[in-house]
Amino acid sequence: MASSKLEEHYRRYIGYLNERKTHDLSDFVHDELTYNDKPMSRADYQKYIGDDIARIPDLYFDIHHLLVSGDYVSSRIRFKCTPVKEFRGHSPNGQTISFVEHVFYRFEDGKIRQVWSLLDDQAIATQLGKPGL
Amino acid sequence: MASSKLEEHYRRYIGYLNERKTHDLSDFVHDELTYNDKPMSRADYQKYIGDDIARIPDLYFDIHHLLVSGDYVSSRIRFKCTPVKEFRGHSPNGQTISFVEHVFYRFEDGKIRQVWSLLDDQAIATQLGKPGL
Repeated sequence: MASSKLEEHYRRYIGYLNERKTHDLSDFVHDELTYNDKPMSRADYQKYIGDDIARIPDLYFDIHHLLVSGDYVSSRIRFKCTPVKEFRGHSPNGQTISFVEHVFYRFEDGKIRQVWSLLDDQAIATQLGKPGL
Repeated sequence: MASSKLEEHYRRYIGYLNERKTHDLSDFVHDELTYNDKPMSRADYQKYIGDDIARIPDLYFDIHHLLVSGDYVSSRIRFKCTPVKEFRGHSPNGQTISFVEHVFYRFEDGKIRQVWSLLDDQAIATQLGKPGL
């Protein structure tokens, strides 16, 4: 897939997450993939993202930087959202928090086969570690 | 700068870090830059990396994935190293630890103008949080 086409495809994938079509990612994700080197089925992956949305109903994936090279995509994604359930070990405190994800993907035949993701856990801990004002 | 040339230039920059030429990054880094949106001089930046090397004498930047697009570079860098001084809030425990960095750069006229970096602090905390066996 050409770079411009893969970029468009990836943006469509992120659109699916933002439109809450997380139950139907078969156009974008292989049946089997790895996430941070751990094997996962697409069903697991969809549940993983769906669970985050249940914790954070206003979760919106805002692409800040997007690079495409060959079958690889990297993305810096910004979030500004309000957790309503426990998120990454922290209870919600009613506050809207901001953090980023830096994520690399390897696509194979136009579908995600490998994901390597880092979230800014320090920012999340700092913002959720304190009770709301 | 063409993508292949910027990739080569970036690999040379990482080579400088691994060869401990951190006092002399003027070929790669502007006099003024931002690091995670905070303004920094090149001297500050060189000191920041030099300080990490002082904490971790065997620090080696091992590029796992590297993407280049226009003036942007993204890199997933693996580290396997042994801190000898406090590192990111954790005392050394004699163990060799593994973690990754996911970092995005914006180059301007061939030199780094902006850096957005995330380290896997959870992995660091897990490995340095426990005393050595």
